[in-house]
Amino acid sequence: MTRTVIESKSRTVTIGFDEPFCVIGERINPTGRKKLAAELEAGDFSTVEKDALEQVACGAMVLDVNSGAVFTNKMAEDPRYADNNFVEPMLMKELIARIQAVTDVPLCIDSSVPGALENGLAMAEGRPLLNSVTGEEERLELVLPLVKKYNVPVVAISNDDTGISENPDVRFAVAKKIVERAADFGIPAHDIVVDPLVMPVGAMATAGRQVFTLVRRLRDELGVNTTCGASNISFGLPNRHGVNAAFLPMAIGAGMTSAIMNPVRSVEMEAIRAANMLMDHDPNGSAWIGFSRVLDAVKEGATFAEASKAAAAAGAGRGGRRRRRA
Amino acid sequence: MTRTVIESKSRTVTIGFDEPFCVIGERINPTGRKKLAAELEAGDFSTVEKDALEQVACGAMVLDVNSGAVFTNKMAEDPRYADNNFVEPMLMKELIARIQAVTDVPLCIDSSVPGALENGLAMAEGRPLLNSVTGEEERLELVLPLVKKYNVPVVAISNDDTGISENPDVRFAVAKKIVERAADFGIPAHDIVVDPLVMPVGAMATAGRQVFTLVRRLRDELGVNTTCGASNISFGLPNRHGVNAAFLPMAIGAGMTSAIMNPVRSVEMEAIRAANMLMDHDPNGSAWIGFSRVLDAVKEGATFAEASKAAAAAGAGRGGRRRRRA
Repeated sequence: MTRTVIESKSRTVTIGFDEPFCVIGERINPTGRKKLAAELEAGDFSTVEKDALEQVACGAMVLDVNSGAVFTNKMAEDPRYADNNFVEPMLMKELIARIQAVTDVPLCIDSSVPGALENGLAMAEGRPLLNSVTGEEERLELVLPLVKKYNVPVVAISNDDTGISENPDVRFAVAKKIVERAADFGIPAHDIVVDPLVMPVGAMATAGRQVFTLVRRLRDELGVNTTCGASNISFGLPNRHGVNAAFLPMAIGAGMTSAIMNPVRSVEMEAIRAANMLMDHDPNGSAWIGFSRVLDAVKEGATFAEASKAAAAAGAGRGGRRRRRA
Repeated sequence: MTRTVIESKSRTVTIGFDEPFCVIGERINPTGRKKLAAELEAGDFSTVEKDALEQVACGAMVLDVNSGAVFTNKMAEDPRYADNNFVEPMLMKELIARIQAVTDVPLCIDSSVPGALENGLAMAEGRPLLNSVTGEEERLELVLPLVKKYNVPVVAISNDDTGISENPDVRFAVAKKIVERAADFGIPAHDIVVDPLVMPVGAMATAGRQVFTLVRRLRDELGVNTTCGASNISFGLPNRHGVNAAFLPMAIGAGMTSAIMNPVRSVEMEAIRAANMLMDHDPNGSAWIGFSRVLDAVKEGATFAEASKAAAAAGAGRGGRRRRRA
């Protein structure tokens, strides 16, 4: 039984074949969010805190924390800021401190800068997920020792020094190489969460089938959990949420166990909640029934985030009362 | 390669592992539609004609025609009307005549009355789908000779004289028995479309997984196409469309090739269109892009049926122009 255990100070999340699908919230990421990058440069973490709480309320079980900001103003004053190896380690520490102050969900430390990964590992309480290693020789040699040293699970992306292959057999072979190399470091397969790389189905018609086949093979042959950047599948297509909302249940049916995604989207979260129930990972359908009440509130005009926060608050209240009665 | 060929006078629909999912429209069914039954009793077929056109516009590739009406007024005047063996054969003939007069999609002849099946087979142009045979001895002996005589494909429902088993292995064994018995009549497996029976996931938590496993086995071990009453899965649950819309892509991913369902529901049809693209059954995503325009019109206030009819009319016009140019 493959179980990838991720922990905060007080919460444990298990990614596994017999667990509800693990939603890793992707919103805390200044890459491609210029406004957020500018806020972070100005020392304003209010959006980060809001995004953390909102994602958790909407159903994120783990929060990805990406430190890939470019500080253009500071760069003009101080050339050291042009180097991500200078910016990201400091920023990662601060991001994690701020997020841990407002929520207790486990974190996923996301950077291409080794110093940021190491600072994140030092700062995060519990057992965070590290994001990521690839099959590139340099990354393997840099990241796997950190994974071993801190005894954490790691996301393994199936590209290598030759790039991203369009051939799924090559991507499988890269994943296998990472798992084997990790074993050389004493890292077990259940601590590797493979991202088989999702291509846009609008550009490559076989992209969906590739993922379903790869996920099944990764599970059956390597015994690993899997994740993906789910929204890649719909890149360039109209009505992307509709594509994502069919892709996620199909991937879950094929054995995918987590995704890095935006949980503040009701269409995708509805698909995941329903898929959890259909996989027998929602005993008595109670999560589905609770989620349906959130959808009812959305139909009456609330945003999904508002309705989710209200439901989470009410649920905490009910839970509290139940605990007092017991 | 398993291909189940269904034909009208002028159209061919193939159910197959490498074909888009076959949507069989379920609306023409007076069972549980009292108003429709009363209209039919009064000789009014306007709803039938409207339902036929609407379902086809919304994406039905085959129309199920069920003759299971109870004519309560006529019954009071003439006791023969209390017998479905008297009512259904007449009604089936009339239903098929009316439907064939307004649309040319292939039909699925649906009755528990042998005389209605035979009249339907005699009346339907082309090669209709017969619905259904079961593993019950009496049904096998009544229906398989008709299937052979008319050389048509048949829906095989996996219950037998002992009823519907909750054990999926038993349902598989019933399907296998039907396929073997059909072979004794000279009916090939590719003309059997097995319905593995979908239980409500709200009542049986393993219902989804059972179907996914059964569909895979039916395909791999018996080489047959599959169908189901898709909406059964969500019976008794809130927000049923959300459950159906996750179930259908998951079933398609597992290998399900058709469903008997209501195509006048945008949520389910959106899930199927997306799943077709993700299975590489929508070259260039052109069907998805066309469907997205229908969804845009729905967002602007049209009903799904209206928007679908407008798109179908526009598409036919464009097709006509293209043909003239060629």
